Amino acid sequence: MSNLDQVLADIDRDLDNSLERLFAFLRIPSISTDPAYAQHCREAAEWVKGDLSALGFDASVRDTPGHPVVVAHAPKPGAPHVLFYGHYDVQPVDPLDLWETPPFEPRIATLEDGRRIISARGACDDKGQVMTFLDACRAWKATAGELPVGVTVLIEGSEEIGSRHLPEFVEANKDELKADVALVCDTGMWDRDTPAITTSLRGLVYEEVIVRAADRDLHSGLFGGAAQNPIHVLARVIAALHDDTGRIAIPHFYDGVHEIPTQVLEQWKKLNLTPEDFLGQVGLKHPAGEKDRSLIEQIQSRPTCDVNGIIGGYTGEGTKTVIAGEARCKISFRLAGDQDPQAIIENFEAYVRTLIPADCSVEFIRHKGSRALALPFDMPALTRAKAALRDEWGREPVTIGSGGSIPIVGDFKRTLGLDTVLIGFGLDDDRVHSPNEKYDLSSFHKGTRSWARILGALAQ
Amino acid sequence: MSNLDQVLADIDRDLDNSLERLFAFLRIPSISTDPAYAQHCREAAEWVKGDLSALGFDASVRDTPGHPVVVAHAPKPGAPHVLFYGHYDVQPVDPLDLWETPPFEPRIATLEDGRRIISARGACDDKGQVMTFLDACRAWKATAGELPVGVTVLIEGSEEIGSRHLPEFVEANKDELKADVALVCDTGMWDRDTPAITTSLRGLVYEEVIVRAADRDLHSGLFGGAAQNPIHVLARVIAALHDDTGRIAIPHFYDGVHEIPTQVLEQWKKLNLTPEDFLGQVGLKHPAGEKDRSLIEQIQSRPTCDVNGIIGGYTGEGTKTVIAGEARCKISFRLAGDQDPQAIIENFEAYVRTLIPADCSVEFIRHKGSRALALPFDMPALTRAKAALRDEWGREPVTIGSGGSIPIVGDFKRTLGLDTVLIGFGLDDDRVHSPNEKYDLSSFHKGTRSWARILGALAQ
Repeated sequence: MSNLDQVLADIDRDLDNSLERLFAFLRIPSISTDPAYAQHCREAAEWVKGDLSALGFDASVRDTPGHPVVVAHAPKPGAPHVLFYGHYDVQPVDPLDLWETPPFEPRIATLEDGRRIISARGACDDKGQVMTFLDACRAWKATAGELPVGVTVLIEGSEEIGSRHLPEFVEANKDELKADVALVCDTGMWDRDTPAITTSLRGLVYEEVIVRAADRDLHSGLFGGAAQNPIHVLARVIAALHDDTGRIAIPHFYDGVHEIPTQVLEQWKKLNLTPEDFLGQVGLKHPAGEKDRSLIEQIQSRPTCDVNGIIGGYTGEGTKTVIAGEARCKISFRLAGDQDPQAIIENFEAYVRTLIPADCSVEFIRHKGSRALALPFDMPALTRAKAALRDEWGREPVTIGSGGSIPIVGDFKRTLGLDTVLIGFGLDDDRVHSPNEKYDLSSFHKGTRSWARILGALAQ
Repeated sequence: MSNLDQVLADIDRDLDNSLERLFAFLRIPSISTDPAYAQHCREAAEWVKGDLSALGFDASVRDTPGHPVVVAHAPKPGAPHVLFYGHYDVQPVDPLDLWETPPFEPRIATLEDGRRIISARGACDDKGQVMTFLDACRAWKATAGELPVGVTVLIEGSEEIGSRHLPEFVEANKDELKADVALVCDTGMWDRDTPAITTSLRGLVYEEVIVRAADRDLHSGLFGGAAQNPIHVLARVIAALHDDTGRIAIPHFYDGVHEIPTQVLEQWKKLNLTPEDFLGQVGLKHPAGEKDRSLIEQIQSRPTCDVNGIIGGYTGEGTKTVIAGEARCKISFRLAGDQDPQAIIENFEAYVRTLIPADCSVEFIRHKGSRALALPFDMPALTRAKAALRDEWGREPVTIGSGGSIPIVGDFKRTLGLDTVLIGFGLDDDRVHSPNEKYDLSSFHKGTRSWARILGALAQ
C-alpha cells in the first residue's frame, strides 16, 4: 500500500472524528460584520490555532486592527512549500426565522434526493472547506508521519467584510509567508460530479448610499405632495443603475472590461449551462443580466451591480402614514478584467449625484474595493492539482471563472509574488450567505481526499 | 359675570389640573397598529370612560373587532345635541433614538422662541385635542352646573390604522349616536394666531407591495448578473409611480379629481403661503409635487402618492453580498374630489403588474380606503363656531382643506345624516407622527377656551 493509499484509507476511517472536529468549529458564531460577535471571532481563531497545534504546526493567533489572523508553519526543508489560505469568519444569519434548525447547531441531514449534507452557517463558506485541507494534513501526519510538502497556513477572520487589514498583514509578514504557490479552498465545483479549478475572480466594490430630505419624519397627510420623499429619490437612483437591456448605465462603467477570447467562450459553450440547470435550483428560469450575453458570461466574466439591502420609513407591522427623513441602501459591484475599483467608486458617486433633486442630499459610505483577477492556466502546480482531482473524481476538472471575489489572491501575487490555485468543493445549491447553508457530505469527504492527493502531487 | 365668562375664568384657573389629567392620558402607550400594545389601548379607553364619568356623562367602553370604543352621553332635552368624535390611539414611536425624552413621559418644555409646549406622543394627535373638548365640558359643568347643549362623545382607538370597524359600529348604534351636528377636534390651525375650520379632507388608500424573485436569498457573487433582484424591480415600480412633472403615472388615477373653483383659489392665493413658510420649518424649500400646481394645491386639494416605508435584503451593520428573495414597501395615496378608492386600488395593482418581469411575482396587501370629503361652507353650526373662534382669537378664522384623512366623517354623513364641523388647534410644526411630537400650551389652553365658547354658541 502506497503512502497515498494509506492516507486515503485513514481519511475514510476517520470521517466521524473529522465531522466532530468540524462541528465544534461550526458551533462558534464567528460573524465578522457584527461587532457584537467579536469575541466569538477570537474564539474561532483560537480554535483553529489549537487544531493546527495538535497537527504539529507551529501555530499562533496574531492581532490585527480587525479580527485576529491565525498563522501556522510546518516547514519541510528541500521540499516545495505551499501557503494555504482560508477564513474562519461567517456571514450574518438573518433572517433567522427562515432557518430550519439553528444556524450554529450543526447537524447531518438527508435531502430528498438521498444526498447527505452538513447544515450550519459556515458549513461550506468557509469552515467546511478549510477543514478539508486541515484534515488532509492530519491524515498525512497520522500515516506518513510528516507532510509531503512544507505548509504554511493563513486563516483570517475578516473575509466576509472585505479582508480590509489582511493586505497590510501580508506585507508586514512577507518573509514569514514565503512559499512556492498559494492554495485557496473557498470556491466551488462545476457540478456534483465534476471538480473545478477557478482561474479568474471578479473584483468587488461595496458602497452604502443614504438619501436625506426633510430634517425629520413627516406626516404624509400634511406634507405629502409638497415634500421630497427620499424613498422615491433612492428608488429612482436604483432604477437608473441599469438600462432596459440590462447594461449598467453608469458612465465609463465598462472601461477595462475585456471580451473573453473566442476559444474560452467555445469551451464555456461546451459546458452547456442552461438557465434551468443554474437558475432552476433557486426557483428562477430567465437570465436577468445583459440581454446580449450568455448566462455563463453573465455570472462569470461580466461585471454586475446589485442592491444588497434597502431600508427607509416605517417597516413595522401595519400602517404608518409617514414621509421618511432618509432612506438608505447597500450596493455592490462585481468587477471584471481591468476595471479600476477607485474609478468605479468615483463614476458611481458622480452619477448618483446627478440624480439627486433639490432639497435632497446624498451621503456615501465606502466599504471596500478589489480588482478582478485572472490566473495563468499553465502553471505547474495547477497542472498537478488537475491530475490529482482527476484521480479522485474520475472526471476531467473544469477551469472556470468565479463570480465571487477573494481579494487577497491579488495581494499574494503583488506582495509575495505567488500564483494561487483555487480549488473548492462548494455546490451551487449550498445556500452560501443564505439561511440553511449546507455542505454536501461528499464535498467534505472527497474534498479532504482531493487535498491529500494534491499535497502528494505537489511534492513530486 | 356671564356664564361664559365664568366658564373661561374657570378654565384659566384650572389649567394645571387640566395638564395633570392630560399627562395621565399621555402616559398610556396606546399604539393601535402594534398588537403588542392592545392592552394599553384598552387602558386608554378605560381612562377616557373614567374621565367622562367624573364629568357626569353616562359612559361605557364598547368592544369591537378592533380596539374598544368609548361612548358617553350627557343629554339635554330641548337643546341642540352634538356628537363629538376623537381618538385615543397614537402612532408608533420609532425611531425611538430620535426622541429627546421618552415619548410616553410627557413634559412641558420651552422652545427657543419662548413658546411653551407639551411634548409626548399623542400630545397633539389626538389626546391633547380630545382633552380641549372634555375640559371645556368640565368647565361648563363646574360653573354652570350643566352643559349648554346635549353632548354625545365617541372616542375610538383605531383611527391611526384606518378606523376599520368604526363604520359598522356607527351603523349598529345609529339611534344612540343621533345628533344635530358632529364636532371633530383632530385638525390644525392656519398658523399660531389664526384659527381654522377644515371643510375638505383628502381620502386615503394604503397598500403594501411585496415583490418576490428567487425562493431564497442568494450570494450575489454566484448569482449576480443572472438572477432577478427584487429590490431593483421594486425600485423600478416606485420610480414609475410619478412622471417627470410630478404627476402620478397610474392610468386613470386622476379620474374624479375636480379643479378647485376660481374664487377658492383666489382666497388661497391671498393666504400667501410661501415654500419658505411651509417647507422651511422642516428643512426644505422646493415644492416637490406637480410642477403646474401651487404649493397650497399640492398639499390641500391634489391627490398624492407616497411610499411610507421600504425594506429588503441586508439592512444590518456592515456589508453582506446577498440578493434578497423579496422586497416590500408600504404605499399610501391621498385622494381628492370624487376619486374612487376601489378604482384606485385596482388601477394601481394592474399598473404595478405591468412592471413585474419574468421570474418575479407580486403580492398586494390592502389596508384601507376612504373617499375624500367636502363639507358645506354655509351650515349654521359652522357659522356659529366661526364667530366663537373669532371671539377667542381676535382674528377671522380661515376655512381650509386638509391633506389628512378622517374617514369616519364620511360615515357620519352617510349613516347618521350629520354634517361635521372640524376644528383643531394643531400647528404645522407639531411633529405629528414623528419623534418629539408636541402641542403648544397655547393650543391646549386657548383650544379649551374655544370649545367652551363654541358649546355656548351652539346653544343659541
